Amino acid sequence: MIPLAQQNPHRRFNPLKREWVLVSPHRTQRPWQGQTETKTTEVALTYDPTCYLCPGNVRAGGVRTDKYASTYVFENDFAALKPDAPQFSSDEGSKGLLLAEGESGVCRVICFSPRHDLTLAKMSVPEIRAVVDVWSEQYAELGARDDINYVQIFENRGAMMGASNPHPHGQLWASRSIPDEVISELAGQREYLEKNHAVLLCEYQKLEESRGERVVSQNESFLAVVPFWAVWPFEVMVLPRRHVATLQAFAEKERSDFAAILHAVTATYDQVFDTPFPYSMGLHPAPCDGEEHPEWQFHAHFYPPLLRSATIRKFMVGYELLGSPQRDITPESAAETLRQASLRASTQ
Amino acid sequence: MIPLAQQNPHRRFNPLKREWVLVSPHRTQRPWQGQTETKTTEVALTYDPTCYLCPGNVRAGGVRTDKYASTYVFENDFAALKPDAPQFSSDEGSKGLLLAEGESGVCRVICFSPRHDLTLAKMSVPEIRAVVDVWSEQYAELGARDDINYVQIFENRGAMMGASNPHPHGQLWASRSIPDEVISELAGQREYLEKNHAVLLCEYQKLEESRGERVVSQNESFLAVVPFWAVWPFEVMVLPRRHVATLQAFAEKERSDFAAILHAVTATYDQVFDTPFPYSMGLHPAPCDGEEHPEWQFHAHFYPPLLRSATIRKFMVGYELLGSPQRDITPESAAETLRQASLRASTQ
Ligand SMILES: O=P(O)(O)O[C@H]1O[C@H](CO)[C@@H](O)[C@H](O)[C@H]1O
Ligand SMILES: O=P(O)(O)O[C@H]1O[C@H](CO)[C@@H](O)[C@H](O)[C@H]1O
Repeated sequence: MIPLAQQNPHRRFNPLKREWVLVSPHRTQRPWQGQTETKTTEVALTYDPTCYLCPGNVRAGGVRTDKYASTYVFENDFAALKPDAPQFSSDEGSKGLLLAEGESGVCRVICFSPRHDLTLAKMSVPEIRAVVDVWSEQYAELGARDDINYVQIFENRGAMMGASNPHPHGQLWASRSIPDEVISELAGQREYLEKNHAVLLCEYQKLEESRGERVVSQNESFLAVVPFWAVWPFEVMVLPRRHVATLQAFAEKERSDFAAILHAVTATYDQVFDTPFPYSMGLHPAPCDGEEHPEWQFHAHFYPPLLRSATIRKFMVGYELLGSPQRDITPESAAETLRQASLRASTQ
Repeated sequence: MIPLAQQNPHRRFNPLKREWVLVSPHRTQRPWQGQTETKTTEVALTYDPTCYLCPGNVRAGGVRTDKYASTYVFENDFAALKPDAPQFSSDEGSKGLLLAEGESGVCRVICFSPRHDLTLAKMSVPEIRAVVDVWSEQYAELGARDDINYVQIFENRGAMMGASNPHPHGQLWASRSIPDEVISELAGQREYLEKNHAVLLCEYQKLEESRGERVVSQNESFLAVVPFWAVWPFEVMVLPRRHVATLQAFAEKERSDFAAILHAVTATYDQVFDTPFPYSMGLHPAPCDGEEHPEWQFHAHFYPPLLRSATIRKFMVGYELLGSPQRDITPESAAETLRQASLRASTQ
């Protein structure tokens, strides 16, 4: 990174979404008297009789969770999307000012393990590999449906990120429409392909590998970096080394290597502030809209909120909501912190 | 609103930003076992000797805050932007993948009142009018500079919204670049003007006034509505009744009426859960970039995080960060709740 940017306020361009982030490296000295969060604590119980995700327990709707031994998928009892939602489109004669459309889809919960006390960071790579396989099956099954054009697979980890249960689990929301973030990433990747006759995130992966300064972790098939345009303090993006648009297209070894890099990133996070690290994580495969997607490269995003300590987070508020996202520590210094944490994680 | 949308999952279009929000009205029944926030409490002290924003006290850098009697403006001691930041532009030969630009600007803090215990909701309309006048002066002064093309005025209210001090104050971040949110709103308003030969937010104001179902409060010069495309549960937009792009262009009466509607909205908020209501609020005048802005209509946004109670907020996490924003209660039902709260506020 050029030295001028390391010391001075600047903005960085996100070519994937074609947006800017304001970086203020000198602002880390700011004292903090604001809100502190409750430190995330480890879960001790391997089975919690009051947890509706533990095997054999009864859920909110009266349904019983199976006595599962590895992973477990079920329809979300309080789904934001429903398969039979009526299709309509109406702007009430307002020239587009009051435009609403019916949206249908499917929401599922994916339990990662029957053990209540585990997290991706504490699971073994083969155990995570089972989760990767389930994600892949789910994407294949739902993506094949005519009424589904995107399958958003994600995990909200930790109460700070809105997770209502510490039991290791993620979700998928599959919808008829392609969500806006994916629309932005499509546009950014298409523009790059047209201009450069190359795949944006494949070029970017090579560039980051050769620079090294933002790399957090890597294996034969994947690279984990703090993106040059990261918004969250310790944001990470996982990129394949090969051009591959979806999970199903992963080779056998890539599935295991993907499990391994997810383990490496989450175990690294837990070392940063010596606390279970909250985050939202999600997969971005190509849309399953029946189109070819030569521009698209599979990737995963990690968006963790912590900034200074286990209890001091970054607030995305006034300026961020009304102007542009803003960050204090540079992506390069965040990557350095994560590399140190990664060393500690691997010697544990 | 058409009945189908009141009961079923649908998405709504935001013509200002040209983005969609997913609405899941049936999801309000969902039980909540997740994170609860500390209830925001009222401040009792009119003067706090440890508060660096109270008149006469010493701030972080050793500077003393004036013994002010009404409003007070000073340069942020930990500014995210600096006037003398070097200008540069570099992509390190990466075809735009590592693009950074120097960004200069000015960050100021604006104290609304010398009284530590007040909030906009508890201040009188003439006191808020003094704040409106300061905002207008600041925009005029900074907007006239060649090195400043946008002045983002905002308030983070409450610890939940990252405010580090309860003393009534807001901020302004004035920058050389126009921030991304404003760029989106520019594009949306331009497209509408070209297509319809009318100003988007002026047409929208008339439409909302005639429908009534999303109106929260109004006076002779302004309307406060929960926008049709609101993302936050109790989001509010304040719109002038007349086409006016900036604060300086307000007539005398409009300035006072703007103060009055800000008071009405904030006092209404405090009634919803009988608690000081956290929010981020900001003004969106036209850019001060030396261009004509016939497409632009002045407006203010309120983004409050609370959803179900004084301690249960909406989390913008997994799906929202990776897919699209999602809301549970409809804007129409939020507006109804706010109208009831507004009645209680006005009879206090
Ligand atoms: O008011 P402060 O302490 O400058 O900071 C607050 O507002 C800023 C602008 O929205 C945010 O970037 C910070 O995360 C938030 O804590
Ligand atoms: O896991 P839950 O309880 O369905 O809900 C959580 O994730 C959703 C998807 O990101 C968000 O809309 C909710 O605000 C959050 O609390």
